[in-house]
Amino acid sequence: MSSKHIVVIPGDGIGAEITAEALRVSQSAAKKCGFSFTHESKQAGGAAIDAYGVPLPEDTIEACRKADGVLLGAVGGPKWDNVAPELRAEKAILGLRKSLGLYANLRPIKVFPALAAQSPLKPEIVSEVDILIVRELNGGIYYGARQEAVIVNEVEQAWDREGYSRPEIERILRLACRSAIGRKGKVTSVDKANVLATSRLWRKVANEVAADFTQVEINHMYVDNCAMQLVLNPGSFDVLVTGNLFGDILSDEAAVLSGSIGLLPSASLGDGTGLYEPIHGSAPDIAGLGLANPLGTILSAAMMFRYSLGSEQVAAMIEAAVDQVLADGYRTPDIYQQGLTKVSTEEMGQQVINRL
Amino acid sequence: MSSKHIVVIPGDGIGAEITAEALRVSQSAAKKCGFSFTHESKQAGGAAIDAYGVPLPEDTIEACRKADGVLLGAVGGPKWDNVAPELRAEKAILGLRKSLGLYANLRPIKVFPALAAQSPLKPEIVSEVDILIVRELNGGIYYGARQEAVIVNEVEQAWDREGYSRPEIERILRLACRSAIGRKGKVTSVDKANVLATSRLWRKVANEVAADFTQVEINHMYVDNCAMQLVLNPGSFDVLVTGNLFGDILSDEAAVLSGSIGLLPSASLGDGTGLYEPIHGSAPDIAGLGLANPLGTILSAAMMFRYSLGSEQVAAMIEAAVDQVLADGYRTPDIYQQGLTKVSTEEMGQQVINRL
Ligand SMILES: CC(C)[C@H](C(=O)O)[C@@H](O)C(=O)O
Ligand SMILES: CC(C)[C@H](C(=O)O)[C@@H](O)C(=O)O
Repeated sequence: MSSKHIVVIPGDGIGAEITAEALRVSQSAAKKCGFSFTHESKQAGGAAIDAYGVPLPEDTIEACRKADGVLLGAVGGPKWDNVAPELRAEKAILGLRKSLGLYANLRPIKVFPALAAQSPLKPEIVSEVDILIVRELNGGIYYGARQEAVIVNEVEQAWDREGYSRPEIERILRLACRSAIGRKGKVTSVDKANVLATSRLWRKVANEVAADFTQVEINHMYVDNCAMQLVLNPGSFDVLVTGNLFGDILSDEAAVLSGSIGLLPSASLGDGTGLYEPIHGSAPDIAGLGLANPLGTILSAAMMFRYSLGSEQVAAMIEAAVDQVLADGYRTPDIYQQGLTKVSTEEMGQQVINRL
Repeated sequence: MSSKHIVVIPGDGIGAEITAEALRVSQSAAKKCGFSFTHESKQAGGAAIDAYGVPLPEDTIEACRKADGVLLGAVGGPKWDNVAPELRAEKAILGLRKSLGLYANLRPIKVFPALAAQSPLKPEIVSEVDILIVRELNGGIYYGARQEAVIVNEVEQAWDREGYSRPEIERILRLACRSAIGRKGKVTSVDKANVLATSRLWRKVANEVAADFTQVEINHMYVDNCAMQLVLNPGSFDVLVTGNLFGDILSDEAAVLSGSIGLLPSASLGDGTGLYEPIHGSAPDIAGLGLANPLGTILSAAMMFRYSLGSEQVAAMIEAAVDQVLADGYRTPDIYQQGLTKVSTEEMGQQVINRL
């Protein structure tokens, strides 16, 4: 087997600590499975602004393009909130998505039985949650034409254009339908077709794509209703597919249902290198203190083995070890409850390694 | 005192039953306070499509323009789902908003102590909820330019334009800031300023407007984070102000936190006549069966007395009676729990009247 190569981007805040643990776990699991990979570290976000004056250096993009997978911690923080807009740390994220052609953001949302009690929802509502959110990541209003504030006919105004083309909708719907096979076979496509022209095209193309998948049943939901159903009946969803902006909102709403956003991983996929990162932020207030939860990053690394490095075996081994660590009562402060064992970022990584 | 005049639009589905009870309660409360008003009934939505071939007849618009307030039940239903887009029942809603210049949608979200247990959230999280959502209702992507599916350079595509002008942002922010006085004095403005040009203008203008209100403290939140915070810390919000599309999503998300969307009212205000309606839909499956909850419409009527008819006294009397009916254990089927008294739509209206 030819060796795989990954790029690790620690980023800012707690990024360094959490990616360090994810890397240790990955190396240990890979070794146990006879899988070998190499890695190099690159900068992005605030760290890159400080070092190179730009949030996403060309050198980082190049390294990511050549790699088999990218593992990212988190970027941004108040220190860089007041730089010029084109230098903001978020530009690193948006730039990476665009330059790697990452058109699909996959966010599995499940509730770990050991943590169900931490959910803001009642236990009977969360227990059945197992949602895969598939968010379009390379189009829509995020990358449409826009006009910053300008005075026209003496009135100050600004605008942004939401839009999708058939090929963009087709590829994300195909990915959603493929993902539903082996799950419950149910795809919910979310739009605002009673108002938006873009949504009406989205819905039409979604139906056409889904017709090619005989094992998959598609249904459509307005985004406002979906925002309600995620809280009322989260257990009724299987795969949820939607555009970039609605996906941003709904995936974050769905994330908090789990009661532990520190544990949620994500994968961003395109035709080339995939990018893997936890869904939480860089938490500058606790950076360097060993308080951060590394499990979201560790589970993101597992997704990387599955989707980009071609080893379902390593992925499953890491996921099983995380389940076991939680069942055994180890908790970082964000998910700690009385009577359980409080551990640091590094100890949590070690407990996962011990159970591989 | 000169007599006020209102238009009642029952609409479709359960609309007739719930507006009938709201009208009975309004008449009874007004009489007790020595307040007099007249009313007439007009059609919109599916009922108007059936009768006149259009969802919003000119005659209805004219009557609404001349009235002091409009009380609406609900419009739409599967029967009219397959008519041409320009005839859809939703057009009645969007058309009324535009022709009456209703630029502000006010949605108070509070949890009735007697119903807190029905919330999908844990009791300790919902108990403090008292949010006023102020949604811009006459601009943004709802009314921007759009392009239905069209083939350009051999690629099928569609787009919609999101946009706001300074005067549009100023008036809704002023209304939000005014509303915060007499509440907790806290305004949270929600946008996506890290991506959208429209949001960056929104944020700038919001700060300028808020600077004129010394008793009000403004803060800004990204829409994705807001979708999380509404579930995690709903008690931390006071007034939440946002654009049309984000408001559509967030107000529905916030509504379900209460555990009883059948009880939530809304007011849509502009420079002329105000429109009042419950936030729930037309529920065609239970229409005519006496199962619908009229309290959302009754509380909408109370808002109408407060904001459009100039009688805080009638408004407060209706609201107090509703509180009392709930405390006394009367429940329509949607909020029924064992041990309490199940009542029909009409009986619920009567119980409110008995407590005025
Ligand atoms: C940082 C921001 C631009 C980004 C987005 O809106 O996509 C973030 O919220 C996310 O969801 O990854
Ligand atoms: C019916 C629809 C067009 C409408 C909207 O999106 O505004 C509805 O969802 C609402 O919130 O009143």
